[in-house]
Amino acid sequence: MTDLLWPGDHRAGDHFTGRQLCAAMLAVEESWLRVLVDAGIAPEAARRPLRLRQEHVEWFEDHSELAGNPVPALVDLLRADSDLGSATKQWLHRGLTSQDVLDTALMWCLGGAVAEVAADLRRQVVSLADLARVHRGTPTVARTLTQHAVPTTFGSKVATWLTAVLDAYDDLSGLTFPVQIGGAAGTMAAAVELGLDPAAARARVAGELGLADVPAWHTVRSTVTRAGDALVRCTDAWSRVANDVLTLSRPEVGELSEGVGGPSSTMPDKANPVLSMLVRRAALTTPMLAATLHLAAAYQVDERAAGGWHAEWAPLRDLARRTVVAGAQTTDLLEGLEVHPDRMAATLAAAGDAVLAEQHSMAALSGRDPREGYLGEAESLVDAVLERARTLSEESP
Amino acid sequence: MTDLLWPGDHRAGDHFTGRQLCAAMLAVEESWLRVLVDAGIAPEAARRPLRLRQEHVEWFEDHSELAGNPVPALVDLLRADSDLGSATKQWLHRGLTSQDVLDTALMWCLGGAVAEVAADLRRQVVSLADLARVHRGTPTVARTLTQHAVPTTFGSKVATWLTAVLDAYDDLSGLTFPVQIGGAAGTMAAAVELGLDPAAARARVAGELGLADVPAWHTVRSTVTRAGDALVRCTDAWSRVANDVLTLSRPEVGELSEGVGGPSSTMPDKANPVLSMLVRRAALTTPMLAATLHLAAAYQVDERAAGGWHAEWAPLRDLARRTVVAGAQTTDLLEGLEVHPDRMAATLAAAGDAVLAEQHSMAALSGRDPREGYLGEAESLVDAVLERARTLSEESP
Amino acid sequence: MTDLLWPGDHRAGDHFTGRQLCAAMLAVEESWLRVLVDAGIAPEAARRPLRLRQEHVEWFEDHSELAGNPVPALVDLLRADSDLGSATKQWLHRGLTSQDVLDTALMWCLGGAVAEVAADLRRQVVSLADLARVHRGTPTVARTLTQHAVPTTFGSKVATWLTAVLDAYDDLSGLTFPVQIGGAAGTMAAAVELGLDPAAARARVAGELGLADVPAWHTVRSTVTRAGDALVRCTDAWSRVANDVLTLSRPEVGELSEGVGGPSSTMPDKANPVLSMLVRRAALTTPMLAATLHLAAAYQVDERAAGGWHAEWAPLRDLARRTVVAGAQTTDLLEGLEVHPDRMAATLAAAGDAVLAEQHSMAALSGRDPREGYLGEAESLVDAVLERARTLSEESP
Amino acid sequence: MTDLLWPGDHRAGDHFTGRQLCAAMLAVEESWLRVLVDAGIAPEAARRPLRLRQEHVEWFEDHSELAGNPVPALVDLLRADSDLGSATKQWLHRGLTSQDVLDTALMWCLGGAVAEVAADLRRQVVSLADLARVHRGTPTVARTLTQHAVPTTFGSKVATWLTAVLDAYDDLSGLTFPVQIGGAAGTMAAAVELGLDPAAARARVAGELGLADVPAWHTVRSTVTRAGDALVRCTDAWSRVANDVLTLSRPEVGELSEGVGGPSSTMPDKANPVLSMLVRRAALTTPMLAATLHLAAAYQVDERAAGGWHAEWAPLRDLARRTVVAGAQTTDLLEGLEVHPDRMAATLAAAGDAVLAEQHSMAALSGRDPREGYLGEAESLVDAVLERARTLSEESP
Repeated sequence: MTDLLWPGDHRAGDHFTGRQLCAAMLAVEESWLRVLVDAGIAPEAARRPLRLRQEHVEWFEDHSELAGNPVPALVDLLRADSDLGSATKQWLHRGLTSQDVLDTALMWCLGGAVAEVAADLRRQVVSLADLARVHRGTPTVARTLTQHAVPTTFGSKVATWLTAVLDAYDDLSGLTFPVQIGGAAGTMAAAVELGLDPAAARARVAGELGLADVPAWHTVRSTVTRAGDALVRCTDAWSRVANDVLTLSRPEVGELSEGVGGPSSTMPDKANPVLSMLVRRAALTTPMLAATLHLAAAYQVDERAAGGWHAEWAPLRDLARRTVVAGAQTTDLLEGLEVHPDRMAATLAAAGDAVLAEQHSMAALSGRDPREGYLGEAESLVDAVLERARTLSEESP
Repeated sequence: MTDLLWPGDHRAGDHFTGRQLCAAMLAVEESWLRVLVDAGIAPEAARRPLRLRQEHVEWFEDHSELAGNPVPALVDLLRADSDLGSATKQWLHRGLTSQDVLDTALMWCLGGAVAEVAADLRRQVVSLADLARVHRGTPTVARTLTQHAVPTTFGSKVATWLTAVLDAYDDLSGLTFPVQIGGAAGTMAAAVELGLDPAAARARVAGELGLADVPAWHTVRSTVTRAGDALVRCTDAWSRVANDVLTLSRPEVGELSEGVGGPSSTMPDKANPVLSMLVRRAALTTPMLAATLHLAAAYQVDERAAGGWHAEWAPLRDLARRTVVAGAQTTDLLEGLEVHPDRMAATLAAAGDAVLAEQHSMAALSGRDPREGYLGEAESLVDAVLERARTLSEESP
Repeated sequence: MTDLLWPGDHRAGDHFTGRQLCAAMLAVEESWLRVLVDAGIAPEAARRPLRLRQEHVEWFEDHSELAGNPVPALVDLLRADSDLGSATKQWLHRGLTSQDVLDTALMWCLGGAVAEVAADLRRQVVSLADLARVHRGTPTVARTLTQHAVPTTFGSKVATWLTAVLDAYDDLSGLTFPVQIGGAAGTMAAAVELGLDPAAARARVAGELGLADVPAWHTVRSTVTRAGDALVRCTDAWSRVANDVLTLSRPEVGELSEGVGGPSSTMPDKANPVLSMLVRRAALTTPMLAATLHLAAAYQVDERAAGGWHAEWAPLRDLARRTVVAGAQTTDLLEGLEVHPDRMAATLAAAGDAVLAEQHSMAALSGRDPREGYLGEAESLVDAVLERARTLSEESP
Repeated sequence: MTDLLWPGDHRAGDHFTGRQLCAAMLAVEESWLRVLVDAGIAPEAARRPLRLRQEHVEWFEDHSELAGNPVPALVDLLRADSDLGSATKQWLHRGLTSQDVLDTALMWCLGGAVAEVAADLRRQVVSLADLARVHRGTPTVARTLTQHAVPTTFGSKVATWLTAVLDAYDDLSGLTFPVQIGGAAGTMAAAVELGLDPAAARARVAGELGLADVPAWHTVRSTVTRAGDALVRCTDAWSRVANDVLTLSRPEVGELSEGVGGPSSTMPDKANPVLSMLVRRAALTTPMLAATLHLAAAYQVDERAAGGWHAEWAPLRDLARRTVVAGAQTTDLLEGLEVHPDRMAATLAAAGDAVLAEQHSMAALSGRDPREGYLGEAESLVDAVLERARTLSEESP
């Protein structure tokens, strides 16, 4: 079910929903059961698929408060499940701790959300490169501190959008999503007690779930804060685009418009820049979510912090979903963006000599007449970022 | 459905859910239809109860993105509803704008959530007053900057908890929840065009919904930020209690314990201070939600900000629900709290003369022998806050 | 010395500077010495004015790290001061703790900064009331979500600015600035050991410093968070004005302009809306400072939190100074604001029938011709807020 | 002058002070003058060292508000300086814009601060590696959610500290500090008009100042947000250490203590964990500063945002200085940390069988007697992180 108070939320689909999270937690437990069976510790009969039945879900949710995290209730539910044999019930979760299951499941969810954001960034790079190429020489006025400054090209504005998107992509594509397998206090003592080779067991689970194989990171949350920061870098980049669209699609400016405007409930003639508006909205909220992840990381203590760990989950989910939504909205925004070179030209014409005042003072200083045009290296800046975009396109999956 | 990643979320029940929000939006539209009918503007046939049918809900959610807020989709749905007559469809929402319906509905939801928080604060005042009375003279060691300082009483520690709770209550009980009725740009132009008396219409809707009657506040968001700040003041107060419980229930200290500890998924003997931990968790996240409300308020521009308005809704909902949850958890925590005066006495005894070093230096300065005890005005501080609590209890609903 | 990286910082003058803070801390210590002498506990010779000599200041600053707060170093410095007699040195600070001195000094500084902000708010109310009166009927276009909506008056826009400023004033004028006198752990044990009546002593210091007399609040930080929240409500209000000026002074709109524009370092013809820009800047930073105060409050534990207390001071100072600066800038902005009704009229004329589409649909619904004008209750909304402003002006100091 | 309200601030020395910033801005202007002279555009006489005279500084600070940034006032001051010849005055700053000078100067300051933080991180790696080696096998109790969990080694706790520090180092050492040279709107139009090769000029300045050579990034602030995020990752890591020291140096635990405790102003026997407390303090404030940098980045619009750019400077400075301070404090904390294995052993002994409950349940499940010890892979985890630390030590400057 989507979130009425976050229009566009349905675009985030199943990422981090209760259903996806349950599936991921069950996948961790199943993988671990296979590890125990294959190591000859648990009997073959313990290898069973794990399912949550629909009628159990509500019970499960209410009971997730008891331990402060949903895993003990999940384990209890499975152990009470008449469909599972005694071997499975007996060996389920042995050697793990709640944090192993939940952190690993969250990383699995996060990896999926980040992959979708990355795919959107790649589509945006294509759209932006096209826009920059087409408008490499389209004259428009540069505005600084809200006022007309000097002439520039619309392509060079798009080049700044593209640079921000490429920067975001660089950070996002450097993220890793590690398995968390450490046992009660990160030492794998229970697993070792059971006779497992802890490093091999961890590698096996990582491999099965498509996650990175690293030592337990129960109280070192760099993985989480890096993801949070990289996701915010995405909304920062998109917000910079949205701000320009919101500004330049004002009726007095009219240099850009969204392909499809949003309706009003009472004013029949309105077409609002809804995508830009919703992207901008996201970027007003994500920095505080990432800051919360840092606060939680900085609150770690002992071998598991009371509250620090728990404060991470919902902000990470919200941050990931909102970034997925804003990413898809930005892709649509760019693919449908309408550019009005005639209005750009008209603005420049109306601005007249005022936007050439700097050029005149430079020419006077040089003792020369002003040159033709005043675009500096605008076009070569566009070419440089197009080259950077091309490299990305070629190397990509 | 509760939120697996926010254990305890079920305690917030229906506050701000999609279902409650829809009901509230429909209540606004219904009330407005009554206004139109009673003023003789719409025909009597327009007065009809409004319902969302279950099959419409998913459609509605997906379409709430089109206008950037759910109201136009809601209005479209109702106008397409075969159960409603043409008069209702024709007059529905006439004179209102989306923001009127959504802001009013949110204030209605907020009022309900705040009332529940206030009820919890009142129960906590009772528990805390009892604890303070019982332990008015229970000796314990004061700790400053983690180290033993001087003797104090457990009652005087409880007095600080109670003071924080009373402060939070004072702020919360001063909040108002106003109706928002202004039309497209806050001027009620459409309502006036239809022949309505705008002030009377607004007063009528406010009265029917139990909200305050104030002029339109589309771009002045003090109401929202005040509520946010007051809710954070609640989690601040509860976190201060939770921190003490988390610290004093460490096994090495053992002076407090939660009535019912939370289980571990792998360590059979553990009893974790789960309520304190979950309350602490909330308080690590709420300040950033309230900051987001301020950022949104500060982003207002024109007669409705693109993004600034939209960024408020989900943070306000999350802040309200998390405060309701943390409030209920704190109530349980306090009602079940176990105090161990023997351990407090043992700590003091073990600390020995070190915690009387200040007293000895004061006595030396005075040229007198140290007095018996070193509790200063601890007991009268307890009495003062008990008096403040008593006043509250007497005046309350 | 002002802050180069916060242009306009000099407007905050001496509020919360090292110099002011030292003076305030010395005032607390002096007042306490008088209490000790007048109670017959310290000898008359102990009553001496306290001064920091310039050469001591740097030493003092470097040494403030040792105890984690500046008070112990200050006390050491005074005790080493050859100008002070032995009685003063012996009795200085007896019965107090560092937090008493620093919290009280900070409240004294805060009171001064808030008073200056309040004075600016009052000047703004006068300017805004004038603007609203003059432009009560000046036609302009209302813009929602960046697009033209319906006609309104510039006066009704100013009315929203004024409402936000009045709301901010209401909150700010409700703040209290209490003395903090509790001794080592809030119980006044040392003072009582010395023979003082703790309540009388506290009342005396409060009276001398012009602060409120309340029991010790070492670990209950509502006072600090309330001040922080109220200050942010000010920058929220001013930012809403600044956003409109930034938008409406764009050359394509040209409906407002700052009285004096800011220069560019290279473009001779530019006049930038510098005041609005700097006000907007402040509002992008203050919500996070207030959130930090909440986080610090929520981190209180024991009878003094290690880190929680310490994290408050600089954010409170920065928040207070930035609010003073932004307040003065907003006052200048409003007093110099240039309104261009001709441009407003031209925008409306260019918008044509599009902004009357709602009116036409309402008229069609009513089966009547559209009325003359479409301003609804715009003028009575202006009158209502002017009345609220008038009440303030009459009751004020 | 250091900041009384941020004890330890003197440790940040001259980083980002007004003095350093002025020196950096003058260095940018000087370098640019050399570019103009060497290109044969400005006469040889223009090549002059630039200085601010002390008497000018206060004027300069007050006037930095006029343009909203300090550069135009700096340029005015230099042009009014009787010590500079007319050629220098005439050619100074030609082709640059304010943002070029200020952003480049800030990057220069940032590079210096980050280098100091990196040096501290390297020292910490050495200390931590030593601690981990020495205590590789020191038994202690693992604590989860405040309660005793299972046995572990102190070395494996140190391994988590070291991992966090290494993660922070990885991010910090990946930062770049680019020159900003783009002219009024990023196109270098003025430089080209003067006859300069823009790319060569930019490379020359970058080379002279030791900064990275990249195209203008006026409105793409990834560089700033990446630095902010990486600095917060440092305080996150240090806070995790500080939390453990604060917890384990409580008198009831006594397993760690700071080498030198901080004094109280009134309690003669106290030794407070001041370094940990001040580090913890920093980490309560830095996430909000980095969030502010993101908000400013997301607020970029046009070719320079009114307010978005300006809101960055002070938060970046405060974040950098606080990180330098906290880094130095953490280095001292680690180098002086006292570890008490006897108290660790006593805690374990007192915990008794309770911390072996998990082992017993695993053994029962296996049908075997419990093994000797229950440390799992604790020692090999230590070895793994020591190997990672060794790699860093060998490759380092």
